[in-house]
Amino acid sequence: MSNKDNSISKAVVSRLPRYYRYLGELMESGTERISSGELSKRMNVTASQIRQDLNNFGGFGQQGYGYNVKYLYFEIAKILGVDKKHNMIIIGAGNLGRALANYANFSKSGFVVTGLFDNNETIIGKEVRGVKIQPMDKLKEFIIKNDVDIATLTIPKKEAKKVAETLAECGIKGIWNFAHTDLDLPDNIVVENVHLSESLMELSYNIAHTDTKSQR
Amino acid sequence: MSNKDNSISKAVVSRLPRYYRYLGELMESGTERISSGELSKRMNVTASQIRQDLNNFGGFGQQGYGYNVKYLYFEIAKILGVDKKHNMIIIGAGNLGRALANYANFSKSGFVVTGLFDNNETIIGKEVRGVKIQPMDKLKEFIIKNDVDIATLTIPKKEAKKVAETLAECGIKGIWNFAHTDLDLPDNIVVENVHLSESLMELSYNIAHTDTKSQR
Repeated sequence: MSNKDNSISKAVVSRLPRYYRYLGELMESGTERISSGELSKRMNVTASQIRQDLNNFGGFGQQGYGYNVKYLYFEIAKILGVDKKHNMIIIGAGNLGRALANYANFSKSGFVVTGLFDNNETIIGKEVRGVKIQPMDKLKEFIIKNDVDIATLTIPKKEAKKVAETLAECGIKGIWNFAHTDLDLPDNIVVENVHLSESLMELSYNIAHTDTKSQR
Repeated sequence: MSNKDNSISKAVVSRLPRYYRYLGELMESGTERISSGELSKRMNVTASQIRQDLNNFGGFGQQGYGYNVKYLYFEIAKILGVDKKHNMIIIGAGNLGRALANYANFSKSGFVVTGLFDNNETIIGKEVRGVKIQPMDKLKEFIIKNDVDIATLTIPKKEAKKVAETLAECGIKGIWNFAHTDLDLPDNIVVENVHLSESLMELSYNIAHTDTKSQR
């Protein structure tokens, strides 16, 4: 839950993956360098925001040259920790768990699903993208033996807290939590919540508070 | 994309669904009133933050009494716009689209999936939770006839921009965007992005920058 590198704000960190995405797309299209002004236009943020954000990590730009796209892409990869492979498991092989296991894009960024777990006996032994669904009592052993650092929780909230405690005991580093509850864990375990219902409610709030008549 | 009620910050809005969730749980457990201090302990935010956040909408608390749980729950529901039914469609009936369609919790908050769309002919006509998958060429008519206000995009990024333009033409109010791209739409259409890969990267950043040795 805690970020010990306190100098970098959560807001800056939340913007880094978007820079990484745009730089990846620029690389794919063969662009070798880009000014903060051009990047600003594409990303719809101010050039000064881009400079400020990147200055947190040492800058990377050169006056009059702009940014070297490939260099910046790989530097941001290092900062995000996606230059290395992460072994990830998914706990809860229901619809959402299987959808995430099937999502090939994660492995492109180094997040490799190495295990799937569920307590539903009717699906244990089945495979998703070549990964077999295992029973929950194999969880501890698997994490320790296979150097798993991230666990994705796609289980009901009632079970999530207890499973999270087990994960903490096994030394997991990060939990990607889709269960609709907050997890109360030691500070050295990072939790990233994806509360889908809450995201929908933010959408609904913004619909209710956007004046659709005076615009267009 | 824009929130015309500029007095309320995005940060406050992003915290409202969490208040709503905690108040819902308190109601379920039969709690009738709660002080900001107690709520603060449960939610792990300061009591002054809670008071400040709720003061944006008129306060709701009474000195020496605290908050009336049921009243506050329904007031926040109104603010979030979840006191009314939202007709929602899902475009892209792949793994993620079907997982979202199967998620019963959304309809509890008034988000009712009334339509599913896909361009894959092999799945058209199949049903998910009683909702038939329709071909993309039925999209426009369906939105207009069925008073759809939210469209969920679970399609590849290449198709997302074009589909979003079609949705804008049909007068959709909000887009819940899971496609890994930004949508560039008129200001009166609200977009809420759920970029799963980027969420994973934030997790990875926080793992890389959390000191696991000095803690526990």
